[in-house]
Amino acid sequence: MDSTTLLYQLLEEGDEVLAISFDYGQRHVKELEFAARTCEKLRVSHQVVDLSDVGRLLGGSALTSGDIEVPHGHYEHESMRLTVVPNRNMIMMSIAAGHAISAGYDRVAIAVHAGDHAVYPDCRPRFIEVFEDAVLEGNYGRVTVYAPFIDMTKTGIVRLGRALGIDYENDTWSCYEGGEEPCGKCGTCVERAEALAGA
Amino acid sequence: MDSTTLLYQLLEEGDEVLAISFDYGQRHVKELEFAARTCEKLRVSHQVVDLSDVGRLLGGSALTSGDIEVPHGHYEHESMRLTVVPNRNMIMMSIAAGHAISAGYDRVAIAVHAGDHAVYPDCRPRFIEVFEDAVLEGNYGRVTVYAPFIDMTKTGIVRLGRALGIDYENDTWSCYEGGEEPCGKCGTCVERAEALAGA
Repeated sequence: MDSTTLLYQLLEEGDEVLAISFDYGQRHVKELEFAARTCEKLRVSHQVVDLSDVGRLLGGSALTSGDIEVPHGHYEHESMRLTVVPNRNMIMMSIAAGHAISAGYDRVAIAVHAGDHAVYPDCRPRFIEVFEDAVLEGNYGRVTVYAPFIDMTKTGIVRLGRALGIDYENDTWSCYEGGEEPCGKCGTCVERAEALAGA
Repeated sequence: MDSTTLLYQLLEEGDEVLAISFDYGQRHVKELEFAARTCEKLRVSHQVVDLSDVGRLLGGSALTSGDIEVPHGHYEHESMRLTVVPNRNMIMMSIAAGHAISAGYDRVAIAVHAGDHAVYPDCRPRFIEVFEDAVLEGNYGRVTVYAPFIDMTKTGIVRLGRALGIDYENDTWSCYEGGEEPCGKCGTCVERAEALAGA
């Protein structure tokens, strides 16, 4: 929901966008199909990067280990720490920044939002700030980081996205389980339902 | 030469070490064989991470693009900029940091040194500092970054390594060309010869 909304927003702002998805061995690899469908609909180039061999090194998370169950309950609850994939956002954004430089783009955009802050340290404003410092220092200042939703709630994101014409129900996938149908019980299913109802 | 010396130094200091190499489509993939041989000799676990699909996104460098020639001349010369792989060190260290957290290690070590600073921005002290800030912020402060050679010259590294018993001539590979024998003309061959002679 978040990344899809960001993509619509960037296009609305007139940016030329390349979308990047990562296959890091997540249970919910299904999100990649939805990303591809949205990019096709919007005629945006889409790269899927195979990080399966990296995922192998990032065990201990319910999102990547088949033998750790996805916790049920509220997205901001302590139990959701089990869904943290260590250093995930830094790995993905580092690769995106490298490709931005190589392909001539001037920033990397990420849809982290206020609801992520409780559980995921790599979604917090301070992390985004210091990460951007590192990207600037390491690359002659050629790429910046753009996180326009960092202080927004998920409900706010859905309101924005509906105004932009997004069909969340059919065009986005959240569930961490990645089954045929959403489980309705994992943190991100609960969060999704709250945001859709709240908006 | 640098990473090998760092490995010996860490073991000398009594650390428990896991070595990580990256296959990012570099011409000199031969360096991985030498890394494996050294790790076997020292009985250190060694992971080789397949980043070939990431390397595809980091074009425009002579190290990863077959159609860009490896520049000849001095390692600190402006022409060596062609060998910069965008954001390479951040990508590799981000993955290493994620694995450190997952596997219970407390720091990531990297052998960047003073001779790297001229051409590679992601080898400079300021980059290492802000990168460490980002790793700490993004991971509840669980992993630090260790770059003990950051102010040393390559000659100093070789002096240290010889005292530790390293056989650079037989056990390390530098040449960016990655051919049967070192080319003797690329920046890293020139730098290697200077350091061996200087030490």
